Amino acid sequence: MSVRPQYRNLGKSGLRVSNIGLGTWVTFGGQVSDEVAEELLTLAYESGINFFDTAEVYAAGKAEIVLGKILKKKNWRRSSYVVSTKIFWGGKAETERGLSRKHIIEGLKGSLERLQLDYVDIIFANKSDNHTPMEVVRAFTHVINMGWAMYWGTSRWTPMEIMEAYSVARQFNLIPPSAEQAEYHLFQREKVEIQMPELYNKIGLGTVTWSPLACGILTGKYDDGVPIYSRAALKGYTWLKDKILSEEGRRQQAKLRDVAVIAQRLGCSLAQLSIAWCLKNEHVHNVLLGASTVEQLYEDIQALQYLPKLTGTVMAEMDRILGNRPVAKRELLNRF
Amino acid sequence: MSVRPQYRNLGKSGLRVSNIGLGTWVTFGGQVSDEVAEELLTLAYESGINFFDTAEVYAAGKAEIVLGKILKKKNWRRSSYVVSTKIFWGGKAETERGLSRKHIIEGLKGSLERLQLDYVDIIFANKSDNHTPMEVVRAFTHVINMGWAMYWGTSRWTPMEIMEAYSVARQFNLIPPSAEQAEYHLFQREKVEIQMPELYNKIGLGTVTWSPLACGILTGKYDDGVPIYSRAALKGYTWLKDKILSEEGRRQQAKLRDVAVIAQRLGCSLAQLSIAWCLKNEHVHNVLLGASTVEQLYEDIQALQYLPKLTGTVMAEMDRILGNRPVAKRELLNRF
Amino acid sequence: MSVRPQYRNLGKSGLRVSNIGLGTWVTFGGQVSDEVAEELLTLAYESGINFFDTAEVYAAGKAEIVLGKILKKKNWRRSSYVVSTKIFWGGKAETERGLSRKHIIEGLKGSLERLQLDYVDIIFANKSDNHTPMEVVRAFTHVINMGWAMYWGTSRWTPMEIMEAYSVARQFNLIPPSAEQAEYHLFQREKVEIQMPELYNKIGLGTVTWSPLACGILTGKYDDGVPIYSRAALKGYTWLKDKILSEEGRRQQAKLRDVAVIAQRLGCSLAQLSIAWCLKNEHVHNVLLGASTVEQLYEDIQALQYLPKLTGTVMAEMDRILGNRPVAKRELLNRF
Amino acid sequence: MSVRPQYRNLGKSGLRVSNIGLGTWVTFGGQVSDEVAEELLTLAYESGINFFDTAEVYAAGKAEIVLGKILKKKNWRRSSYVVSTKIFWGGKAETERGLSRKHIIEGLKGSLERLQLDYVDIIFANKSDNHTPMEVVRAFTHVINMGWAMYWGTSRWTPMEIMEAYSVARQFNLIPPSAEQAEYHLFQREKVEIQMPELYNKIGLGTVTWSPLACGILTGKYDDGVPIYSRAALKGYTWLKDKILSEEGRRQQAKLRDVAVIAQRLGCSLAQLSIAWCLKNEHVHNVLLGASTVEQLYEDIQALQYLPKLTGTVMAEMDRILGNRPVAKRELLNRF
Repeated sequence: MSVRPQYRNLGKSGLRVSNIGLGTWVTFGGQVSDEVAEELLTLAYESGINFFDTAEVYAAGKAEIVLGKILKKKNWRRSSYVVSTKIFWGGKAETERGLSRKHIIEGLKGSLERLQLDYVDIIFANKSDNHTPMEVVRAFTHVINMGWAMYWGTSRWTPMEIMEAYSVARQFNLIPPSAEQAEYHLFQREKVEIQMPELYNKIGLGTVTWSPLACGILTGKYDDGVPIYSRAALKGYTWLKDKILSEEGRRQQAKLRDVAVIAQRLGCSLAQLSIAWCLKNEHVHNVLLGASTVEQLYEDIQALQYLPKLTGTVMAEMDRILGNRPVAKRELLNRF
Repeated sequence: MSVRPQYRNLGKSGLRVSNIGLGTWVTFGGQVSDEVAEELLTLAYESGINFFDTAEVYAAGKAEIVLGKILKKKNWRRSSYVVSTKIFWGGKAETERGLSRKHIIEGLKGSLERLQLDYVDIIFANKSDNHTPMEVVRAFTHVINMGWAMYWGTSRWTPMEIMEAYSVARQFNLIPPSAEQAEYHLFQREKVEIQMPELYNKIGLGTVTWSPLACGILTGKYDDGVPIYSRAALKGYTWLKDKILSEEGRRQQAKLRDVAVIAQRLGCSLAQLSIAWCLKNEHVHNVLLGASTVEQLYEDIQALQYLPKLTGTVMAEMDRILGNRPVAKRELLNRF
Repeated sequence: MSVRPQYRNLGKSGLRVSNIGLGTWVTFGGQVSDEVAEELLTLAYESGINFFDTAEVYAAGKAEIVLGKILKKKNWRRSSYVVSTKIFWGGKAETERGLSRKHIIEGLKGSLERLQLDYVDIIFANKSDNHTPMEVVRAFTHVINMGWAMYWGTSRWTPMEIMEAYSVARQFNLIPPSAEQAEYHLFQREKVEIQMPELYNKIGLGTVTWSPLACGILTGKYDDGVPIYSRAALKGYTWLKDKILSEEGRRQQAKLRDVAVIAQRLGCSLAQLSIAWCLKNEHVHNVLLGASTVEQLYEDIQALQYLPKLTGTVMAEMDRILGNRPVAKRELLNRF
Repeated sequence: MSVRPQYRNLGKSGLRVSNIGLGTWVTFGGQVSDEVAEELLTLAYESGINFFDTAEVYAAGKAEIVLGKILKKKNWRRSSYVVSTKIFWGGKAETERGLSRKHIIEGLKGSLERLQLDYVDIIFANKSDNHTPMEVVRAFTHVINMGWAMYWGTSRWTPMEIMEAYSVARQFNLIPPSAEQAEYHLFQREKVEIQMPELYNKIGLGTVTWSPLACGILTGKYDDGVPIYSRAALKGYTWLKDKILSEEGRRQQAKLRDVAVIAQRLGCSLAQLSIAWCLKNEHVHNVLLGASTVEQLYEDIQALQYLPKLTGTVMAEMDRILGNRPVAKRELLNRF
């Protein structure tokens, strides 16, 4: 394969990750067979992708089981790849959810068992839990000290919540978070473009992003509505369908038609352009991709080769179309 | 069963516990057979109760043995329930009592062996030990770091003692207590109503209460004296008998007759009203119930359905009868 | 005067401030004569307002000079009022701007000299300065330890920046900020309604708000464009004029017409309703008012008497008209 | 004069204070003329009393003015006596009350000015202020570091509040409180007899007590009601009158008659016995006396000579009469 991912430092953790990662949400243990899952992971690994992300809640634990089986079968050197999982929703019992010390420990132990691993590289808190600022940092420090994880991170936390965790870690000599997982795509930009660089500068936080195609919206497949075969037509995804068919959704589809013209000019698909656009941001250390077929994953990885074509001029053109380039928020008045 | 407990955050530990818990004092390994113990625990778990409390001293260790056997047999997911034990009186030797590091570690190991568990969720200091403020916090931090407990708590400590433990934890970067077990019922209110909310606000402490029926006094069964079948007639419980027959005890019985009228009006028993009254207090995160028969436990759990009937008016009526609504203590003089 | 401000705790500083404060921006040393300034301050103080805010940059230092002269002349007890100033733009030289230790100390000394005071009660950082997180906290701690200020605060900082300052203070045992000055009015809500309460809960931060009338927009005077006598017609305020005449500005004017109907129904002016609406928020500890005439200030203070009329129903009605009630931000996907 | 006070260490502060102190409440600047005040202070000093206590609120500042004038006139060596004042209610303005940093500093400066002193030996917080745990410790540390006070203490704080202040001091390397002023007399015992020794052992806290005669109740003068010349007949003291005439008050009068028999037997007055009884408690480092005539103070000081007569037998006899000997609180059940 000619294109290879670049490797970037995940924040200041020292960890070098491929700028593309493979996510397992919806697909592993769910939408795709175990055989396809294996083909996907194999393609990813052989393409140079060294970051595989999962969560205890994906397919109710099956995503981890499938990922674990493949890793065991493939027998790649444990040191040659990075596995992360996410903890928050682990079961039906009240005590199996949230970020109590109990659930962080029991949840991670369950994940390790399903993954057949001695440790994960990063354990993410899948959501913040306002009731436990102190316990969370202490419990993550504990699982790292026990050797069950190398780092811990946050997922979908506000910058204030992340700074609070950092503050607790510094004050009590515990381990601060190393990375945040944030949504990032053409229509969701502010957090990753404004706040994550600031967190990188302030506390060395790494940035992993997800949903580069906005759950498929950026593939263009919803241009004429919601096709019957698509994810938005699935049971349990009516929120996605509603979003697509909303006024805002229709405005976005209109803009996408203009972006598609650029993609055509560059010789790539709309999806590839969308992914390349994410990768272009140097503050993004890893873009998690999901894929349900090997062909799709292959196509998505090809986005890498269009990176050089995303010149300043092209990026500015896209900004004009999207009209959502975020700027550091200023209040009404600028001068006093 | 139609009524289900509510789940509350135990202080700021992140732990979500049912507002009713099952205690094992007097009953497990003692008053009740192993079969009844199993029925009690099963009813509790299936009713949604996820908190089981015991102590090394209960029935000289037998309570833990019985509880452990049942948990093993039932094979419920370990993450779906919370087990707490209490350490202080572990044996006859001088070194087997108190809160020395030696006894905390050896005592907890003994408990874990009897319980056949790898860890308890909360280890409580069953009493304070004035000689060891520093060692206690350090030793509890140690057993948590070893993975033998998730949290530690206090039982029957004064607010000053709890604040001292917190102070030591903060100063030396150790783990502060997460919860206190306190007596709470119609005739014992001040600590839980005045001081525990303050400790929650100051240090995030959770509140577990015990003796909601004041050792049976609030069932009304001592209205005409001490029946021969009752606990107060047991050997070793003369202190309870004395208490019931004291002048103060008789005054309380008189008030209970008035409270019983309210219970009748609401359609519940005096015991159910007493339990519901405890549950009504939102600062109480878990009310420990003891029961010697399945019927009794079932009846007690039904107290949950009377919670909505405890309106502000009813609570005020009870306050008037009891005449003991605590207020923040002020000294003789109010203004200087 | 019959209406009196309420007094609120400014965060957890212990300081009790009137819920209305008098700001000096644009007016003192600029728009109004020294005589009018004195009348304004006198009316404020005699109405029970105990919080006067200024900044080194206001009228290039003249605002502080005027305020200081009046305070000296009036000879009110120093302990009976609170004076705050803000540091950031102190002069034309490069070293006279920003939040270097040098400028914080030299700037504050300049302010104290102009104010003829030994100390201010609160020194605010008028803006954040990304290059100096550590120095800022250290320098503010220094001026407080020297007795030149009682507290320090931030003005227009993001929650992340505030948490960082707090983190630095805790880690190095310095003094954290006590309050933030934030813009707050009918069309600028999110920070004060969502983030400030969170900061209050996490670190006890107080909230002072400014621009309750959005630079006059909420008086309704721009309903038909920009009158020649108004601030937006002044040189140097074209940004305000542009804002008012923008599409967004016109949409706001339309909403204001509906809000004005409510004001009429309650028997107050649009400005009074706008101010009362700010005061209604209990998380706002002090609303800074600016005024260029005594009549205007008198009218604005009367807003206090309409507070009881802002019932839940009225507030909900306003929310419907404004359509901008902020909710805690959630990203695209809610469940994983 | 033959009797001399003993000198005791005030907690672990190193300060050696006479076991009797002279308070200025009600008397200095109020009930007594400046000449009598001077005679009182002179008698006290010449009797060996080295501790003079006042407060900013006493006679609205006049108590401090009178005390200061006398100290200046007498010109005793500053190093030969201890002056303490108390801060909380300093004026009518909102900002002149409570325990904000502003009021602690401004209040103390006002006190020093009125006292014509460069520093007080101890500054007490006259009441706790729940909103400011952190600020209080920091501000008291500041005034000590500025040289305006040697120590700080608390007055009428709960043990939990004191431990919290201690905790803050230890965590942030600030100065913890050195002493607590608590009410103590025959009918108010628990805090001083149970909790203060514990605080002494835990954090070295000193104990200063006040109201040894319970506002005159223990002189026996209210035995037959409220005489027209007594304090309880004064305007503003109806609370005292009510207390005396209450059922509880009458029960206390009955007990006092029995105590008076003991006094007679020992050859002293009821007041002297009451004071001696306070002094007998070795955990009380200083008993503050108030007096409105030199004769009364002289009589009260004579209590010292009856100390040796308060044998274990006599103390036990008094305990039997009073029936209120406090024991460390235990809950309903003693053994588990």
